[in-house]
Amino acid sequence: MQSSEVPEVVVLRLPLYIRALLQLQREGVEVVSSQQIGERLHMTPAQIRKDLSYFGKFGKQGRGYCLRVLLDELRDILGLTTDWPACLVGVGRLGRAIINYTGFAPEGFTIVAAFDSSDDQVGTSVGEFTVRPMRELADAVNNMGVSIGIVAVPSEQAQTVIDQLVDNGIKGILNYAPIAPYVPEGIVVRNIDPVLSLQSMTFYLKDR
Amino acid sequence: MQSSEVPEVVVLRLPLYIRALLQLQREGVEVVSSQQIGERLHMTPAQIRKDLSYFGKFGKQGRGYCLRVLLDELRDILGLTTDWPACLVGVGRLGRAIINYTGFAPEGFTIVAAFDSSDDQVGTSVGEFTVRPMRELADAVNNMGVSIGIVAVPSEQAQTVIDQLVDNGIKGILNYAPIAPYVPEGIVVRNIDPVLSLQSMTFYLKDR
Repeated sequence: MQSSEVPEVVVLRLPLYIRALLQLQREGVEVVSSQQIGERLHMTPAQIRKDLSYFGKFGKQGRGYCLRVLLDELRDILGLTTDWPACLVGVGRLGRAIINYTGFAPEGFTIVAAFDSSDDQVGTSVGEFTVRPMRELADAVNNMGVSIGIVAVPSEQAQTVIDQLVDNGIKGILNYAPIAPYVPEGIVVRNIDPVLSLQSMTFYLKDR
Repeated sequence: MQSSEVPEVVVLRLPLYIRALLQLQREGVEVVSSQQIGERLHMTPAQIRKDLSYFGKFGKQGRGYCLRVLLDELRDILGLTTDWPACLVGVGRLGRAIINYTGFAPEGFTIVAAFDSSDDQVGTSVGEFTVRPMRELADAVNNMGVSIGIVAVPSEQAQTVIDQLVDNGIKGILNYAPIAPYVPEGIVVRNIDPVLSLQSMTFYLKDR
């Protein structure tokens, strides 16, 4: 199946399925039903079966899925069987927290270089990295296999930095700045935006 | 309309509409069409009209919406016309980045207290705050009007901390730890999880 034929909302849910399956696996489960996956994620079994059906038949009707096979298939579908070297742009306080975040590497996302557009930061040490100037971005892409850029610069600079990443061949952008960046077709952006999360939370809090 | 009757995906989109409208307002637009909003957000006009229809009629057919009225209505619907004091739990590197994040306050989300469960951190200064012990959480809720807790502790501690927040009357949780926490019905959780974002990105990068 072509990636363009799968609705993006379905793709967004697959990592959640992987997490639920890993949890069930740790509990000793070997054959898993859509019911069990659904219970973990507060979703209906029908929704889970429908999502999985985009990628072919994983289980036999009424028999459940072999957990290990399903997990491997989902990882393969998402491209999680290989490592994804990433570069960080912006080594302010947020960037430093990201470099020290221990959650990326075990999942195959390894930060291999750090950049900053400020002359004050270039050449300083952040964790194991020496901060590099933006003009060396192409080296990370061409010689270090980087295809993901993590953007942790202030809002005003974010679009410029994202343009530079795209111009240098970066295909995926994890953006921490609270803007909705413009990118050419074919570039994938994920925005980390705590304010958006809070603003959709207060809808449920306001009438308490 | 009861909050339970609006699909959550619709609620999640409303803050995006507000942002698009603010952008258009800055450009001098006074009357706005669903077409214009859609262009900003890569969404169809029909989807936008359908989403807004959950909250009543804002515009006249074919005439567009009065931007200022629509903006005020959306803010009112989401509960963004009042301030939302929040507390932070966890003052490690990530917590300190959050305290220094300048994006929260202009949107009405103000961190008013910082907590940590480690004796080493309690009593130290973080920004303008003296870090308080978890047993004083109830004071923040009862005397400072806090209803939102921002959780920036390591994964292993996150569920315990979230339980404590809920026990002390917190109704909304912004969780930075990479876990899917369990909360009682009626508590709203938003998870900030960069790995989930990356894992749904690689689907689109893997065949390049």
